[in-house]
Amino acid sequence: MAKALVLTPRADDFPRWYQELINKAELADNGPVRGTMVIRPYGYGLWERMQQELDARIKAAGASNAYFPLFIPQSYLTKEAEHVEGFAPELAVVTHGGGKELEEPVVVRPTSETIINASFSKWVQSYRDLPLLINQWANVVRWEMRPRVFLRTTEFLWQEGHTAHATCEEARDYAAHIHRNVYADFMVNVLGIDVVLGRKTPSERFAGAVNTLTLEAMTGDGKALQMGTSHELGQNFARAFNTRYLSRDGTQELVWQTSWGSSTRMVGGLIMAHGDDDGLRVPPRLAPVQAVVLAVKDDQAVLAKVREIGDRLTAAGVRVQVDDRTDTPFGRRAVDWELKGVPVRIEIGPRDLEKGTALLARRIPGGKEPVALDSLAALVPEVLEADQTLLLQQSREWRTSRTSEVAGVGDAVEVAAAGGWARIPWAALGEAGEAELAAQGVTVRCLVTEDGAVPEADDAPGTVAIVARAY
Amino acid sequence: MAKALVLTPRADDFPRWYQELINKAELADNGPVRGTMVIRPYGYGLWERMQQELDARIKAAGASNAYFPLFIPQSYLTKEAEHVEGFAPELAVVTHGGGKELEEPVVVRPTSETIINASFSKWVQSYRDLPLLINQWANVVRWEMRPRVFLRTTEFLWQEGHTAHATCEEARDYAAHIHRNVYADFMVNVLGIDVVLGRKTPSERFAGAVNTLTLEAMTGDGKALQMGTSHELGQNFARAFNTRYLSRDGTQELVWQTSWGSSTRMVGGLIMAHGDDDGLRVPPRLAPVQAVVLAVKDDQAVLAKVREIGDRLTAAGVRVQVDDRTDTPFGRRAVDWELKGVPVRIEIGPRDLEKGTALLARRIPGGKEPVALDSLAALVPEVLEADQTLLLQQSREWRTSRTSEVAGVGDAVEVAAAGGWARIPWAALGEAGEAELAAQGVTVRCLVTEDGAVPEADDAPGTVAIVARAY
Repeated sequence: MAKALVLTPRADDFPRWYQELINKAELADNGPVRGTMVIRPYGYGLWERMQQELDARIKAAGASNAYFPLFIPQSYLTKEAEHVEGFAPELAVVTHGGGKELEEPVVVRPTSETIINASFSKWVQSYRDLPLLINQWANVVRWEMRPRVFLRTTEFLWQEGHTAHATCEEARDYAAHIHRNVYADFMVNVLGIDVVLGRKTPSERFAGAVNTLTLEAMTGDGKALQMGTSHELGQNFARAFNTRYLSRDGTQELVWQTSWGSSTRMVGGLIMAHGDDDGLRVPPRLAPVQAVVLAVKDDQAVLAKVREIGDRLTAAGVRVQVDDRTDTPFGRRAVDWELKGVPVRIEIGPRDLEKGTALLARRIPGGKEPVALDSLAALVPEVLEADQTLLLQQSREWRTSRTSEVAGVGDAVEVAAAGGWARIPWAALGEAGEAELAAQGVTVRCLVTEDGAVPEADDAPGTVAIVARAY
Repeated sequence: MAKALVLTPRADDFPRWYQELINKAELADNGPVRGTMVIRPYGYGLWERMQQELDARIKAAGASNAYFPLFIPQSYLTKEAEHVEGFAPELAVVTHGGGKELEEPVVVRPTSETIINASFSKWVQSYRDLPLLINQWANVVRWEMRPRVFLRTTEFLWQEGHTAHATCEEARDYAAHIHRNVYADFMVNVLGIDVVLGRKTPSERFAGAVNTLTLEAMTGDGKALQMGTSHELGQNFARAFNTRYLSRDGTQELVWQTSWGSSTRMVGGLIMAHGDDDGLRVPPRLAPVQAVVLAVKDDQAVLAKVREIGDRLTAAGVRVQVDDRTDTPFGRRAVDWELKGVPVRIEIGPRDLEKGTALLARRIPGGKEPVALDSLAALVPEVLEADQTLLLQQSREWRTSRTSEVAGVGDAVEVAAAGGWARIPWAALGEAGEAELAAQGVTVRCLVTEDGAVPEADDAPGTVAIVARAY
């Protein structure tokens, strides 16, 4: 029997599929102010798990959490010339507070380099205070003309790291450490997304940075999505805010800085990378609910067994939810859990109970099979690990199969238009080629070395540009 | 030898002591926009621990986290008459976004009842959707004329719970459940503060609530500090936003609601309740660092031992920090840890090592004694539990000793002026007496029953008013 369509198929209209999935899986709604979003409990549960996993990696990288104000004096933004130029068009401005017009309007933070440097310039006195490694979890606002839930919203949630170092090399190493050991480690090993690590071209850099490292995911329609960035700021903000330290030699030196961020955009990336025509597929290591145990019918023995299995799986270290809402039709509940992408579904009805079995449905490879009830506590953790591996493998195969080597701009545009990534020698493309691509809605997502590493410089020999359409 | 004064003594100038402690213990700074604050890593570490403990209790109470927008259309605020009257004077208003003047100005949330009800009215359809139990961790803005770090800031961090129920009784029970099993349990058993649980008088209720439950702490100068509140909202917001459900009987009914919040103000409460003239004293169950192991001198054997003890204590489940910064004088580091209120300090120098001992300093009772190095892993967890108990006991004794029974307004004002709480029969005081007190800067903090329970109604017989000056 053919399954009823729950969502517009991805192949028909990918953006529509994305929006329908977000609505039907109860991930988020649009907020009343244009471009804002309400993150619903299940969507927020995904974000909470991302926060937990990232926060642990950020702390392991030596950074401490702190919190800086939402409101930034307008004058701070203007201190770093490129920075203000980059952000001015996106600012939300508070002009009235406490019933009065403010003497100086304040800006709602679009990012916190400026206000954090105002603190750093007080906190950093000597080389003993370095490195200073700070992270904050916060909301930021960038007025968005073409909003799309999770991907581009006027307000979003993120973490932003800000560090100060004694030398250029230390700052460079730290930005690279965050790029690889925090972001890539999380995205590959938890999100199961085979991101490409690279370097942004000068025209795609963060406003005020001297180098931007990026992680790019391929979406289900073969476009690219930037999942996080780590910047070397050089001494640009240090100069603007006079952030200096007394060196071991007794001289006053400007610090070298980094900043790095990842946001609720990753929830959108997760959907676009792993979703299929039945809904989301959540990688087991991320999943707030790894397994759901469903009572097929309102039957005392079934309900008792469902709860018992729930307890046994919890004891086995699985994040479990028991679904005993038998006043809602079973089929509807099964479709809901499929939409939400819970990796494992265990369905128990009266006939299963008689046979001592349950139906085990795996969301990632798909398919259902009967398994012995007594085997579940041992089996489910194995299935979860296997499906985590499988999801990453599928992500890698998808990206590889949709990536082509090309020699010129025309071919690159064609590959991108067909839903794929093109690899083209950066020396052949250059900034002129980049502008030509941009005119056709295609961007250089990042630069990589021939063997897939991150280039040391924009003009390193053998550098390859990865170009694509992007969200 | 008399100890050098690190802070202005509390008895000389309590508000100044508070501000100095916050600066010297590196808890927070003032932000550049008046009334805002920068929460420094150590201060944020206290808040993170509060979040962890509260979040676990909130989830155990069945609520799920979600996130609603920072920006609220101005028109939403005006839908509930008392609510807008209460908050209008404190609002921050965004008039410009993305380089243009907005058609309708948006308000930066002062609290989220309105925007959350806009979602609830969509999400709630039938009795099956109830109860709807939502919490959010967020920043809010209330323009503050007399700011004081942590206690009253223009922007602060908090959690706000919002729930919808089918009946008045369910909503009432849930508000009381949060009051007692989330807030009081956390404040008494983790913060070690002997808060009083009571009911606000009508004039002190939250704008839009029909009943406000509160938790009041006594500060080191005998004033009162509101630590959290839990409100019954009745059907006020449901009516304003038309939040209705289809009952089992097939009729459309308005939901009954609660909201409840606790904020970074609790960090201020912690300082004011437990701080002494040497600095903060952090309750062990809260402390981000429960024990610090200090190397007294730059000596290889000492450094090795300090790290080994750190590892052993970590293995024993203690949150430990090793302080091997021997390029900073030992005395200064010891004073710093005392200021920060870390419950246990373990000091190891070459002479201690020879004897196989360390000096164990306990911040809460004070005092130092030599203990065998081998005993530390067993001893420290015991000391931490004992000092947690001691801190709560001190808090209870302090409150009891500074609370007096009085019969009239004059005596109540006198008790409050001397730094204490007065208990006065509510029937004798009434709203007229409350206004008389208010004219002299004294407020009714809450109503309690004779035996210290929470009254069922404002006019329950035998109700006692607790009155005090407040922060």
